[in-house]
Amino acid sequence: MQTLLSIIEICATIAFAISGIITARRRSFDLIGVYTVAFVTTFGGGTVRDILLDRRPFYWVQQPIYPMLMLGLAIGSFFVAKADWVALTEKAIMIPDAFGLGLFTAVGVAYGLEASMPLFIAALMGVITASVGGMLRDILCNEIPLVFQRSTQLYVTCAFVGACGYLLCTYLGFDALAVLVCTGITAAMRLGAVRYDWTLPI
Amino acid sequence: MQTLLSIIEICATIAFAISGIITARRRSFDLIGVYTVAFVTTFGGGTVRDILLDRRPFYWVQQPIYPMLMLGLAIGSFFVAKADWVALTEKAIMIPDAFGLGLFTAVGVAYGLEASMPLFIAALMGVITASVGGMLRDILCNEIPLVFQRSTQLYVTCAFVGACGYLLCTYLGFDALAVLVCTGITAAMRLGAVRYDWTLPI
Amino acid sequence: MQTLLSIIEICATIAFAISGIITARRRSFDLIGVYTVAFVTTFGGGTVRDILLDRRPFYWVQQPIYPMLMLGLAIGSFFVAKADWVALTEKAIMIPDAFGLGLFTAVGVAYGLEASMPLFIAALMGVITASVGGMLRDILCNEIPLVFQRSTQLYVTCAFVGACGYLLCTYLGFDALAVLVCTGITAAMRLGAVRYDWTLPI
Repeated sequence: MQTLLSIIEICATIAFAISGIITARRRSFDLIGVYTVAFVTTFGGGTVRDILLDRRPFYWVQQPIYPMLMLGLAIGSFFVAKADWVALTEKAIMIPDAFGLGLFTAVGVAYGLEASMPLFIAALMGVITASVGGMLRDILCNEIPLVFQRSTQLYVTCAFVGACGYLLCTYLGFDALAVLVCTGITAAMRLGAVRYDWTLPI
Repeated sequence: MQTLLSIIEICATIAFAISGIITARRRSFDLIGVYTVAFVTTFGGGTVRDILLDRRPFYWVQQPIYPMLMLGLAIGSFFVAKADWVALTEKAIMIPDAFGLGLFTAVGVAYGLEASMPLFIAALMGVITASVGGMLRDILCNEIPLVFQRSTQLYVTCAFVGACGYLLCTYLGFDALAVLVCTGITAAMRLGAVRYDWTLPI
Repeated sequence: MQTLLSIIEICATIAFAISGIITARRRSFDLIGVYTVAFVTTFGGGTVRDILLDRRPFYWVQQPIYPMLMLGLAIGSFFVAKADWVALTEKAIMIPDAFGLGLFTAVGVAYGLEASMPLFIAALMGVITASVGGMLRDILCNEIPLVFQRSTQLYVTCAFVGACGYLLCTYLGFDALAVLVCTGITAAMRLGAVRYDWTLPI
């Protein structure tokens, strides 16, 4: 179980980093830009959550191997043929990204509850963990956050529904299942949204 | 007195939220975008101040009814006829917004003094509380902050003058009056700026 | 030695503030905009670092003379003939800016080590201190951060190399030299980059 979560975490962290790298490379940023955007996309959500909850140390401080690995990925991204790579990679990261969305949401809700937040705020902490990194990525690229646009397939909404699933599990006493349920619901809903083009009606 | 301040606070919070909602709806954001912008507009200033002063818990954590109410407002905004609604609402929120500007400034200065900040920094804390939410709103909408533009009627300046009023009251020993004086000066100056189109000469 | 560092610090703070003022004046911001941009450019990097490391009080809280002086500079900037002034000033601030880049990096690395950060994270703290202010300046001006663009002469890279110099000095036991070495390497590399138009190959 713990091993499974660790594998999801590693894959999701790499998927988030790659999504940042792709966004930055599309704009022809140099290495500084690519690395900064990858870093902010990956760790931005968790860092903002930890600042809000006044938690230290950050995940990327405890595991400095991640930011170092990410520097390697950012440098490596300049040595692969661009056009094919991007289309293929975007498809390949879809699944780890969806599971990462779910897992990061679960982690955020768990930290929110641990800090005795009210339920709605704990759910928000999950959503913030999962989605603020992507918003900061878009702000750094001087664009309106992708998740604000009507044509965007459900993303933040999946995190919110997953967070509610987490809270329901703990309410019903199934604490041990909460992370799995939240990750599963969020990932399934996200993959469904991508597959069938679900968007918010409003 | 406390009741009066509570009423101003509630009205001002709603006014700030509506100003965020209007800005986001104008750009045709979906519910996620509208809610995020409303949230950041309303709570952004106070949250940044609390992070700077290392204060916890945040206002919206202590009063989770506000972020929940705001979700209701954001959803509701999709079910009202747009064009008329916006013009009318913008006018209607002008007065609570002006008083909110004053009250939020006063709260920020008070927290700054409580944290033993130097006077100039305490005044800045008031100004930050009142104006950073609007700046973050504009950044999220991918625009230059409205308050930076020369054609914008006095806004941040009113907060700064009100903050100076607050500090003068406490200096003269009229602590009990400081909140009222700051709120009054700021609101009067802001409403005058809107009515007579006052802008900064430089 | 301490006196030399103080002089560098004062000159660098003014140079960073002026670079923010020039950027804001180019966009015809009013005083609020010019002051906010100058403030964020100068103190943004150190403040973000202190929030990440959970350090208080901030530099500009301990030395409120700086933010006050900056208000004077911002106001004064409206009373000098614009066109000539900018070209001349940009050249004049190049040298204090380069030394400031180095000194701020050194301070950031030192605080990172003091907080027992892993080496790579300590280096990042130095880089963040030196470069995040400029990124926030560009975000406030609704532009892609200058340092992300390929045509930009080495800036963040100089800070990173200087930070590595700092760490090497402390590793070799030359703690007393670390600040000087870091400031010197960073400033020399930055001035070389400006003089010979060095940019990142990737």
